[in-house]
Amino acid sequence: MPQIMFLPEKKSCKAEEGMSLQDAAERAGVTLSFPCAGKGVCGKCIVKVESGSVEFNDNGKIRAGLKKQGFVLACRSKVREDVVILNSSLGDERGQFADALSHMSVDEDLFPGPDDIEPLTSAVTFTVDPPVQGDGLGDRDRFLNAAGEIFKDLPVELPLSVLQRLPDTLRERDGEVSVWHIEKSGVTHIVDVESGKPDRSLGVAIDIGTTTVAIRLVDIDTARAIDTITQYNAQIDRGADVISRISYAKNQERIHEMRSLVLSTINKGISELREKNGKIEARSLRNVAISANTTMTQMFLGINPNYIRLEPYTPAVMGVPLYTAGELGLEVNPCAHVWIAPNVGSYVGGDITAGLLCTDFASGTGDVCLFIDIGTNGEIVLGNDDFLMGCACSAGPAFEGGGIERGMRASAGAIDRLEVDPATGKCRYFVIGGGEPRGICGSGLISLLSQMFEAGIIDQRGKMDKSGKFEPVLALRKNSRFYITERREGYDAGVYVTENDIDNFIRAKAAIFSACLTMLKNVGLSFDDVIKFYIAGGFGRYIEIERAQSLGLLPPLDKEKFLYIGNSSLTGSFMSLLSARHRKKKLELANRITYVDLSVEAGYMDEYVAAMFIPHTNLDMFQRRTVLNAVCN
Amino acid sequence: MPQIMFLPEKKSCKAEEGMSLQDAAERAGVTLSFPCAGKGVCGKCIVKVESGSVEFNDNGKIRAGLKKQGFVLACRSKVREDVVILNSSLGDERGQFADALSHMSVDEDLFPGPDDIEPLTSAVTFTVDPPVQGDGLGDRDRFLNAAGEIFKDLPVELPLSVLQRLPDTLRERDGEVSVWHIEKSGVTHIVDVESGKPDRSLGVAIDIGTTTVAIRLVDIDTARAIDTITQYNAQIDRGADVISRISYAKNQERIHEMRSLVLSTINKGISELREKNGKIEARSLRNVAISANTTMTQMFLGINPNYIRLEPYTPAVMGVPLYTAGELGLEVNPCAHVWIAPNVGSYVGGDITAGLLCTDFASGTGDVCLFIDIGTNGEIVLGNDDFLMGCACSAGPAFEGGGIERGMRASAGAIDRLEVDPATGKCRYFVIGGGEPRGICGSGLISLLSQMFEAGIIDQRGKMDKSGKFEPVLALRKNSRFYITERREGYDAGVYVTENDIDNFIRAKAAIFSACLTMLKNVGLSFDDVIKFYIAGGFGRYIEIERAQSLGLLPPLDKEKFLYIGNSSLTGSFMSLLSARHRKKKLELANRITYVDLSVEAGYMDEYVAAMFIPHTNLDMFQRRTVLNAVCN
Repeated sequence: MPQIMFLPEKKSCKAEEGMSLQDAAERAGVTLSFPCAGKGVCGKCIVKVESGSVEFNDNGKIRAGLKKQGFVLACRSKVREDVVILNSSLGDERGQFADALSHMSVDEDLFPGPDDIEPLTSAVTFTVDPPVQGDGLGDRDRFLNAAGEIFKDLPVELPLSVLQRLPDTLRERDGEVSVWHIEKSGVTHIVDVESGKPDRSLGVAIDIGTTTVAIRLVDIDTARAIDTITQYNAQIDRGADVISRISYAKNQERIHEMRSLVLSTINKGISELREKNGKIEARSLRNVAISANTTMTQMFLGINPNYIRLEPYTPAVMGVPLYTAGELGLEVNPCAHVWIAPNVGSYVGGDITAGLLCTDFASGTGDVCLFIDIGTNGEIVLGNDDFLMGCACSAGPAFEGGGIERGMRASAGAIDRLEVDPATGKCRYFVIGGGEPRGICGSGLISLLSQMFEAGIIDQRGKMDKSGKFEPVLALRKNSRFYITERREGYDAGVYVTENDIDNFIRAKAAIFSACLTMLKNVGLSFDDVIKFYIAGGFGRYIEIERAQSLGLLPPLDKEKFLYIGNSSLTGSFMSLLSARHRKKKLELANRITYVDLSVEAGYMDEYVAAMFIPHTNLDMFQRRTVLNAVCN
Repeated sequence: MPQIMFLPEKKSCKAEEGMSLQDAAERAGVTLSFPCAGKGVCGKCIVKVESGSVEFNDNGKIRAGLKKQGFVLACRSKVREDVVILNSSLGDERGQFADALSHMSVDEDLFPGPDDIEPLTSAVTFTVDPPVQGDGLGDRDRFLNAAGEIFKDLPVELPLSVLQRLPDTLRERDGEVSVWHIEKSGVTHIVDVESGKPDRSLGVAIDIGTTTVAIRLVDIDTARAIDTITQYNAQIDRGADVISRISYAKNQERIHEMRSLVLSTINKGISELREKNGKIEARSLRNVAISANTTMTQMFLGINPNYIRLEPYTPAVMGVPLYTAGELGLEVNPCAHVWIAPNVGSYVGGDITAGLLCTDFASGTGDVCLFIDIGTNGEIVLGNDDFLMGCACSAGPAFEGGGIERGMRASAGAIDRLEVDPATGKCRYFVIGGGEPRGICGSGLISLLSQMFEAGIIDQRGKMDKSGKFEPVLALRKNSRFYITERREGYDAGVYVTENDIDNFIRAKAAIFSACLTMLKNVGLSFDDVIKFYIAGGFGRYIEIERAQSLGLLPPLDKEKFLYIGNSSLTGSFMSLLSARHRKKKLELANRITYVDLSVEAGYMDEYVAAMFIPHTNLDMFQRRTVLNAVCN
């Protein structure tokens, strides 16, 4: 069998003839990136064949020049002989996210107050009678007799893992026990029994994003976030967006694999948080709240997600029942009951219902609010006290670096801000973490394209000025480039954007803008009626409002109307972990939101096409002058 | 490190210097027998050192002659150098048991009739409305809407593993589903959902004995036992009786180990039954009933059993709540709820409450009944319609071959019946499975001792006639022997009984007889008042009533009063699996039985001492003549 060696990892494996390099990498334990799930369309799994050769089924995604140098796509290459492969992917970009996502600017009044603290599971302390020889009572009977008085004779369920420890626990402090419990369907479920007074009440709030998973360790009694950790969702190599993930999860084995991947991400994060914060026992984590979009919720639960994208687009769960951590596979107290945020529809999920807790929606002011959560999908909620409507549009991954040739996420090595000289087009740029730039992220793209448009380097349709006036423009027959860095040859050709990239960006911003507009028109409103415009998502951290407006991504409203609320899904989970009032509100919001399917909404396609210009075909709507002034301030 | 090779298995391992041969055998994967849990008192782990030598801490358990030949006890030998060990233990004795334990002679009328069939989990078939785009209902909502009508709006719990399959199941037969469910604490728990009509209702009834585990595969609709399998409890090498097992389970790790051992025995058995009977899916086994003594119940549940033997002798559980197979670790449908028979006290457990279902106890006839289940412990229940009393006495393992130098269980190679020539004392014997005898089992011992006593070879105290009149008697200064087979030299010295063996037997029979008598006297009754005398246990299969009476093990009642009911614990489990009426009756019986602790019962010790003669010090009670006549028939 051929021997495959991967550099720089120096990991190798034997591979059957005909095996793909993608599979060989997995076998060797080398992480490559497959955002398009191995379909050969994203080009992100590019590797260089250093010695030997592979059978590369070229699909035109790699330029002839690169191919000559030995570059291939791992997903489209088959092993025929011994080879040495140079892994060109960008490696672990983590770390940078932790800061970004822990940033929040949510109104203090929206958080649970001291009187609201009411987690799902709480403790009560009482004393159990001592054992008496021959009274016919087992330890369990003695416990239930004492518990009966406390829990007003509701039936009490004592899980096996608690019963297993009960005989010792009852005898440790002469029968004094603290009993962690939760009421459900008229039954008191015991979560844990410890001897003596209860220890600290700890919990975790989790946001399962398509791209990243954020976990917050919380001291519940003081409503304090002890620590937050953010990691990539380990599913990421199985597709960049939910549709690719669903396509991947086409059979039971794959559904199980996807569940295991996201579970491993979460459990690794929980384990790190426990380790970092005083070696907390898993058993002490007795409350968990989770929010995720509908697809991520189903994948976390291990449920076939395919019906989400098949007519009539029915998810398996809207409201999610309380399951125990043990059932779910979470490495906290196995009897902890896990609160999972309710979904509204196939593409408006628990991350949105959680996120709305960070807003003034339906708060009694009568104000019309608009909420957009821009991730891989864009989700939008519009409403006031009287109505709530939600929809999703597939913005595509452009804002997270997907579909952009030199695009990447907002992590180390990414250009996230820049200045374009309007006369020459030459750029000065800022790199996250300093050092050599490796690509450009969503906020960098907005910064760049806005200035290119102002300077006339691109026109309303995103086509470049190929007159030679701007030196960074490399005019090509198809797909001309604009170089941000110095132009270089070979694989590491510097950082640039192409006309295709710009086209992808325009499609993404058009999808979001036209979705907002369609929703407004649907109820006879305009942007001017919007009092508060909430922007959520990791994306919100970096976005420059005026530049986004100048491109027509955001409408030309007063800057004061825009409110960044960061990772509102995580913040909403945090609130739900702490407070019954917030959990109730979330359920009410989920019930009240009318799910709008844009694909069948009259007028959406027209709006979309009209938004495919910079900033828009309808320039009246964009008071360009005002915006430019704002930018010049 | 020294290398240890075990023959005849040809398994070897490396062992640290100073490691015991017991641990080395475990490391090498060789099964030795340690009924006394490695205390060095039973001598059953005898092995021969074929080459090399070990450090043997001789405790006088092995005769000098054997020691000279290289025999040592594995539990008292430490590794110092490379050795080759010949494993002399008796190997797998299984197989023989299957027949013995499937034998039953329980009154047909006691079994559940066609109208009684009401397992814990049953199926109902209904149709779920098809999905409708935009109606805001997930698959779970549609299912719950339909289920609400069927289950009269009780709260419905849908376990995660069922929810995971629900989207596919709902779409397979246009929404027609069969729903397996159980009601508990006012909540309907869904066990399984399959599309279309329900498949066959299957279940398993299990008896977890200290020595053997019996499992019966049952077709519930027809109340038919499909197949029964009996295996040794894998805990057996951790102690022969419950007290040794409890001593062994002295910490969490050991408690976990004991649980794993019995679980592995059960799961192996279930897997074999599934395989043998048409490759049944584990998921199709949706009902389980288990009975076991109190210690075995706690060990199966993974609960610290030590408080059973510490004052005030309180078990963890009397009634056992319904746990799911998933929680318990049983490899059947993970959502199946498992019925575990209720315990009465520390030493009268669920095997007895199950066993009583096979009797006329409290059946309205007013008859006084006595029930004895003779295993490693002897459990006794006495009562009529008005009262029920239960107690346990530690008979010791003499009836199962323990504490008897050449004793063994009633399996291949055991002498189970014999004829003693009253003139010479010479024996003709029958060997289970034919071939060379390897030892003598409980029923063989009764047969032998009864005839030795009749012929005057032993006296009332069990001491042998050493006058030389009987050739098989080998008179020794201490512990004389009686040879059943030809006398031989060396390790394989033939089969014999010693005066110590006889003493152990007398203690065991005295314990049981005096326990019965104490119970009767306690309520002012005598043996003559007993109308039905039930004998349960694998033991009951082989026992010769008259011989047992002539030794004073059983009282001298009419033979017709004795009823063999075989493994009544398994039969009771089988009944409970099928019928709600029988489960209810079992709970009532458990509640009604007064647990009598013989150790604090006035008069018990006197009765015990009085019973330490053959047949008894009070000969009037034993109408010896009648019994002898019966034997001569």
